[in-house]
Amino acid sequence: MPTPPCPPELAALVHAVQPADSAAMDAARARQAQLTKPAGALGDLEELGVRLAGVFGTDRPHPRGVAVIVAAGDHGVAQPDTEGGGVSAYPPEVTPAMVANFLADTPAGPGGAAVNAIARTVGARVYVMDAGVNADLPPSPALVRAAVRRGTRDLRCQAAMTREEATTLILAGAALARRAIEEGADLIVPGEMGIGNTTPAAAMTARLLGRDPALVTGRGTGVDDVTLGRKVEAVRRALARNGSDPGDPLGVLADLGGFEIAAMLGVMLQAAASRRAVILDGFVEGSAALVGVALAPALRGFLFPAGECAEVGHAPQLAHLGLRPMFRLGLRLGEGTGGVLAAPLLLAAAATLREMRTFAEAGVPGGG
Amino acid sequence: MPTPPCPPELAALVHAVQPADSAAMDAARARQAQLTKPAGALGDLEELGVRLAGVFGTDRPHPRGVAVIVAAGDHGVAQPDTEGGGVSAYPPEVTPAMVANFLADTPAGPGGAAVNAIARTVGARVYVMDAGVNADLPPSPALVRAAVRRGTRDLRCQAAMTREEATTLILAGAALARRAIEEGADLIVPGEMGIGNTTPAAAMTARLLGRDPALVTGRGTGVDDVTLGRKVEAVRRALARNGSDPGDPLGVLADLGGFEIAAMLGVMLQAAASRRAVILDGFVEGSAALVGVALAPALRGFLFPAGECAEVGHAPQLAHLGLRPMFRLGLRLGEGTGGVLAAPLLLAAAATLREMRTFAEAGVPGGG
Repeated sequence: MPTPPCPPELAALVHAVQPADSAAMDAARARQAQLTKPAGALGDLEELGVRLAGVFGTDRPHPRGVAVIVAAGDHGVAQPDTEGGGVSAYPPEVTPAMVANFLADTPAGPGGAAVNAIARTVGARVYVMDAGVNADLPPSPALVRAAVRRGTRDLRCQAAMTREEATTLILAGAALARRAIEEGADLIVPGEMGIGNTTPAAAMTARLLGRDPALVTGRGTGVDDVTLGRKVEAVRRALARNGSDPGDPLGVLADLGGFEIAAMLGVMLQAAASRRAVILDGFVEGSAALVGVALAPALRGFLFPAGECAEVGHAPQLAHLGLRPMFRLGLRLGEGTGGVLAAPLLLAAAATLREMRTFAEAGVPGGG
Repeated sequence: MPTPPCPPELAALVHAVQPADSAAMDAARARQAQLTKPAGALGDLEELGVRLAGVFGTDRPHPRGVAVIVAAGDHGVAQPDTEGGGVSAYPPEVTPAMVANFLADTPAGPGGAAVNAIARTVGARVYVMDAGVNADLPPSPALVRAAVRRGTRDLRCQAAMTREEATTLILAGAALARRAIEEGADLIVPGEMGIGNTTPAAAMTARLLGRDPALVTGRGTGVDDVTLGRKVEAVRRALARNGSDPGDPLGVLADLGGFEIAAMLGVMLQAAASRRAVILDGFVEGSAALVGVALAPALRGFLFPAGECAEVGHAPQLAHLGLRPMFRLGLRLGEGTGGVLAAPLLLAAAATLREMRTFAEAGVPGGG
């Protein structure tokens, strides 16, 4: 079966992702060697600075605004009326309840979830998108409504989405990223909320990386052994349908993914196309990134993994991307929380490259 | 030889370090279980929040200001006119040159060193202290002058400091911490600059932990194998003098330490006495912390290690303190840089505990 052509608007977005600026990276490396510190003494921060130079096209990168775009969607595989029992420690009603929590008025400001609290500490804007939640959501001017369906189909039995549905959500994610960029975002964190979504993420990872489902399917919100066994079995059944080919990344996304995963992919592609840095949170984000680098290999230069999360399939994703995470705090919440936590490290990496004096400027002995 | 009595003003400071508030920590743990996230999903951030509750005496900790206090001192063991060759990749003239760099006017603001650039990204105040630099330093209203001697004596041959000198610097560090607290600091990072100072830090660590010098002496600013051999030998000779007893922590500090290490110890003790959190940067800071917890075991409850640094003796220090670092970025710069980088993680940990809604408040199914 030949792969259907990529829809034109998506093809244009993919084509707009061009490589990071290698000349700026070379200049940044040369500058690192002249700054008033022993060579390499800032550890991983130095390479992060060089990579930010590649993103922003200058050896003095100055990222300012931080945005987290939280896309929410539901999953057929998590619905209680489907066969075989649940794949999450939480009922699907938690998805809309958490969307409402992201938008709630609280004494501390808008939003009562972890991502809201963490975002406030770094001045990050939080954008919330209904990418396909199976509920009536509260009226809120802060909610971006992009759903085309109330949750995916059950990936054990059929394709989760059509290619058209997946494409629509990719483009909706891209549109929201453009808005965030217009409103000042230089560091962009795609985040997600969707009860059950580590199951599609595991299925996508297994197919795209050619791994056994048991090696990339984890405990998500903290499921017990019985539920973990059901998750692995759900992934096996989804793969056994042979509904997609690893060489057709959009097909894999539609077949095995989720609406919020598609939206996050669109955020990543648009951020890279607009020469902004993407901070990559956890495992579900990683599954979108795998599709992204398969579509547009240059996307890799714009991705900055935050932490290695507690989900077992995350390390294989990072190994495939060839990127090292910044920390390992054992996070497994999602919402983009880890990505927002990592933003200050990137701001610091850029600041050292931009603002430190050289040995010559400072008159410090010992420079090259 | 009986241990001389602790000077009264120091004894009062040590006595003022009282345990973290265990009732507030219990309340914080109970609150963590009710917040809108799966249990444990914020990973290490949850325990950091609990520990901050212990420091600030509330299950809704709200730390605000961040301060880094950079103490600078020179070391007899690093002087080129001493026998046996150097122990650093850099000449001792770098110490005063870097102090001038910390204080310089630059287009980005005051200070052209890494710590200044990183501090600006988190709004941290930088305090700079001459704790015993071997040079005339430039006149600057921003420089706190506390030196009693231009560098320590050569610890290979004699005690680095007298007990009185060490005590004076501890109290000077405490005084500067009090000023930083009065000026708004809740999270306090002791930092250091002093060419040669990983040698005294290694000697203190070897003595206080009873380790062989080769196991706790590292490459500092990046010395070669020959210089590393000289460092280990310097530590062996310093210990062979038998100038101090591990049961007399002030004696170990005076015998094997440095002026900036004494000042950082004072900062830590005062911060804990004033119920503020101390973010612990690298190996040299760790040597001060070992003395601190030996003098005042309750200090441990106020210490938050930032990252595991590249220096080989750091992991044994952290194991002795029983504390886990927040990241591992391979930093080995000093100046308090790692500590400032970690501040946003603590601000975030406190914010989640303080600002997230509970399952009940948010009407989210699945809470305990």
